[in-house]
Amino acid sequence: MSSPLPSFKKLTVLNKPDTPTVMTDKTEPIDLAGQGMDHSPLVRSWTVQVTPPSLRDNTALAERLARAIEKATGPAGLTAPLSLAAGLADLYAEADYRVWVAVQVDRDPGRIVMVEPAPGPGRAYGLAVDLGSTTLVFALVDLETPAVIDRLTLANPQVKYGEDILSRVHFADRPGGLDALVQALRQAVNQGAAEICSVHGLDSGRLAAAALSGNTTMTHFILGLSPRTIIREPYVPVINRPEGLSAAQIGLDLAPEAPVLVMPNKGAYFGGDLMAGLVVSGMNRAEKPCFLVDVGTNAEVVLGQADWLLGAAGAAGPALEGGVAQMGMAAASGAVDRVRIDRTGKALTYRTIDGRPARGLCGSGLIDLLAELFLSGLIDFRGRLTLPPGHPQRLETDEGPAFVVVPAEETEDGRPITVSEVELDILLRSKAAMYTILTTVIKSVGLTFDQIDRFYVAGTFGQFIDPRMAVAVGMLPDLTLDRFVPLGNSSLQGAILALVSGQARAEVMEVWRKLTYLEMNVNQELMNRFSAARFIPHTNRSLFPSVGTTIT
Amino acid sequence: MSSPLPSFKKLTVLNKPDTPTVMTDKTEPIDLAGQGMDHSPLVRSWTVQVTPPSLRDNTALAERLARAIEKATGPAGLTAPLSLAAGLADLYAEADYRVWVAVQVDRDPGRIVMVEPAPGPGRAYGLAVDLGSTTLVFALVDLETPAVIDRLTLANPQVKYGEDILSRVHFADRPGGLDALVQALRQAVNQGAAEICSVHGLDSGRLAAAALSGNTTMTHFILGLSPRTIIREPYVPVINRPEGLSAAQIGLDLAPEAPVLVMPNKGAYFGGDLMAGLVVSGMNRAEKPCFLVDVGTNAEVVLGQADWLLGAAGAAGPALEGGVAQMGMAAASGAVDRVRIDRTGKALTYRTIDGRPARGLCGSGLIDLLAELFLSGLIDFRGRLTLPPGHPQRLETDEGPAFVVVPAEETEDGRPITVSEVELDILLRSKAAMYTILTTVIKSVGLTFDQIDRFYVAGTFGQFIDPRMAVAVGMLPDLTLDRFVPLGNSSLQGAILALVSGQARAEVMEVWRKLTYLEMNVNQELMNRFSAARFIPHTNRSLFPSVGTTIT
Repeated sequence: MSSPLPSFKKLTVLNKPDTPTVMTDKTEPIDLAGQGMDHSPLVRSWTVQVTPPSLRDNTALAERLARAIEKATGPAGLTAPLSLAAGLADLYAEADYRVWVAVQVDRDPGRIVMVEPAPGPGRAYGLAVDLGSTTLVFALVDLETPAVIDRLTLANPQVKYGEDILSRVHFADRPGGLDALVQALRQAVNQGAAEICSVHGLDSGRLAAAALSGNTTMTHFILGLSPRTIIREPYVPVINRPEGLSAAQIGLDLAPEAPVLVMPNKGAYFGGDLMAGLVVSGMNRAEKPCFLVDVGTNAEVVLGQADWLLGAAGAAGPALEGGVAQMGMAAASGAVDRVRIDRTGKALTYRTIDGRPARGLCGSGLIDLLAELFLSGLIDFRGRLTLPPGHPQRLETDEGPAFVVVPAEETEDGRPITVSEVELDILLRSKAAMYTILTTVIKSVGLTFDQIDRFYVAGTFGQFIDPRMAVAVGMLPDLTLDRFVPLGNSSLQGAILALVSGQARAEVMEVWRKLTYLEMNVNQELMNRFSAARFIPHTNRSLFPSVGTTIT
Repeated sequence: MSSPLPSFKKLTVLNKPDTPTVMTDKTEPIDLAGQGMDHSPLVRSWTVQVTPPSLRDNTALAERLARAIEKATGPAGLTAPLSLAAGLADLYAEADYRVWVAVQVDRDPGRIVMVEPAPGPGRAYGLAVDLGSTTLVFALVDLETPAVIDRLTLANPQVKYGEDILSRVHFADRPGGLDALVQALRQAVNQGAAEICSVHGLDSGRLAAAALSGNTTMTHFILGLSPRTIIREPYVPVINRPEGLSAAQIGLDLAPEAPVLVMPNKGAYFGGDLMAGLVVSGMNRAEKPCFLVDVGTNAEVVLGQADWLLGAAGAAGPALEGGVAQMGMAAASGAVDRVRIDRTGKALTYRTIDGRPARGLCGSGLIDLLAELFLSGLIDFRGRLTLPPGHPQRLETDEGPAFVVVPAEETEDGRPITVSEVELDILLRSKAAMYTILTTVIKSVGLTFDQIDRFYVAGTFGQFIDPRMAVAVGMLPDLTLDRFVPLGNSSLQGAILALVSGQARAEVMEVWRKLTYLEMNVNQELMNRFSAARFIPHTNRSLFPSVGTTIT
């Protein structure tokens, strides 16, 4: 072709390490010391020899077990749930009084969670789950080594009741709707638990603990609570800090008495996944101010350090989660997650998740696209296409002109993947909202961006996005790249830490208590700030001195 | 008639105050100070105005309730069970945020147990139950005044699976047997709760707490646990100290989250009813040594004072609980519970429970009979009848000679109520066993009976028996009558106290910890002691100087 945009080429497709199916024999030790955490698991196990009762020692079967644990230097004053006590007579007979026992040790007195004939499963295993609205990510955790034995990702089956979380909340209002959503989620968690365990010869019914992390709506779903009040003014959850849960109580097929931690939320926008992210980042222990941003359906922003944490949130994200752009989609199989445009030859290359034929653009793909279109001169600073009408990469649609990202012959459904000027504008509003929130928060405490020590980027967005691109479009402030720290799936990582570290559990509650909500008053100053941020990278280019330098 | 035993007459029949049907408007204030107890109920209630959520205050619905309670000077740091959190959105709307809430306050943090639109039931009500093997006795308790509003007695429907508790334990071993016994008991407790509440315009589904007291087997039944190990060597319960129970968990139709206290047992023979009795007696605070005896299927004996408690038990009681004497029966309607024989005219008078035609003899009736037969010279000190053959009150049976207590024309089934010499001998063995246990226990600590300050007699036996009669037959030591203190239904009374007093709850655990078990070695010395005690009142009459003086 003689066009200035020659044929597009695919990049070598790389599978995301996190994406699908079980990895076997990929046990990763958890370096708690390296993260400044102690090793004090939620549940510990012991193999003990229970003294058989005699006429001289008529202590009950349950209390004998407690005594044997204490003798084995386990915790004292234990109590056993009724459901376990009921089976002890037969169990002792079968095991000749030699039993394996798992004990929830983060409470006083502790609580016996499982008891089996020795050697039982040998150690206490737990399940950490990131309850994403699109995907559920599981980690099978050996609480005692400690180590992550394996990871697994499943699609969230709730999508059949609503692609995005808002439509699911509305579906939950229908008769039977909530129940359908809750059951779908619980079944998927059970399925994930069963799958990840079976690969390793374990039975998920013998998992001794779980930690669940997710946004406020997702944690409400797993708890069986209606998220109705979360999406309606004044946007409040039913519960912030669920406590004392066991697996059986919320329909999870782990050991019935297994304790289940659910990360606390701090309102509709600050979910348990954010608390997890804060603890994983360690900014709650930082000596200098740090930022954490998590972009999902909403932009959640926390500024702070050891003494204080200030949070703000706004509806910034729909464009980045498949909610707005026609071709937008979640970061799932077939999503274009990376785009590069050669500055000279104007050749566009892209990458899809799993290397499958392209189906749409996920958040990081959209940010890449926006940045690359601007840096290569294919759009102007207002997001208008510079390609002339009739150019093969320009398509005229009902919505106006659009840019062809992936030609029809390379997509899954044979239709081109395009982004219109209208969609680019929505994207600009999203990035402007994020920058406005960041600016408002930092101004509220009298700091400037150059005083920020580290800038943590959490969530799926943070995992896949290229900070250079986010700076290039003016979404994130123009800091040196070494200050940007992607946290990966910090929701899952926080859940893993909560299973193995008492300090992590305490810090989750500490950040939950410390986090102060900054209400964003929509006033003229904020609107001015927003308007100025709607250009690429910003009306005030001096805020983004680095933009324009080549990104490769 | 010209016989030395002229026609028997009934005494004026008195209904037992405790026996059947609800008493209305019989509220009895509980004098805690008089019993040296504090008033700190298990559950307290508050009526609070919850602040409606706003954009400026996005605390979750559950935590708002906790905050409102704290503001109303209730406990801080509360948690709400998931089941209550789920209904809060609708409840607030219905109640315009003015709610009544009941909180379990004996734990830290407290736990929200009930929440209703104000004024709700107005205060926290609880149910105390004595789980007797024959009868279930209920008390409806106003935890906050505090007061007993009403009492109710129901027959234990488990009798259809076995008259005595041992036969029920065997029935529990059959397929489905345990479940049948557990369900029968739980249904009866639910029925009693519903009946006692309905009289007072209450709904048992709104009872905020319960305390259950009973022997070890009965508490195992209510918990759904098999009592199999209790009756088989080495006689151990499944659990000593059940904790953290809620009504829903054990199938009780109170408020589902209502905490349920189950009195702890200290082995097969020392049931929660005995712990209750110890606390009610106050001997755990006494400065001088006291005895407590509880005669049911077994004789349970505790000797002690503030610093120490020493217990022993033995199979003393079958004869006194309807298990041995052919005409023996439990202290139920139609049981002869009092017998007097005129010394001169040899006229026998008796009383039946409820004044119904006689059906048999209960424990106190048997003790009375034994004493009166001896004191009036109708039996000798070995329990042999002195009446000559052919006498109308003497009957020759397959078992040998028998004494006619109630003639055929006065009994329910038209057959005479008799006690044979063989049965009298069993009775003598029972009383000898009791005296032997008492002697063994007191000797083991180097005390003598005259050093005993108070002698508490607990249980149904203690409630109805005349201590003078028990002394006359040599069952209890020959102390001045003012030292004998009947405790009445101390099992129920202890449960009532546990509902309203933290000190009582603490003392239950304290006596549970302090109580030491004295194993009764069956050796020659014990056998000699037992043999000497098989006569009336004893081989060594100097031990019973008062016996022979007229009892009226």
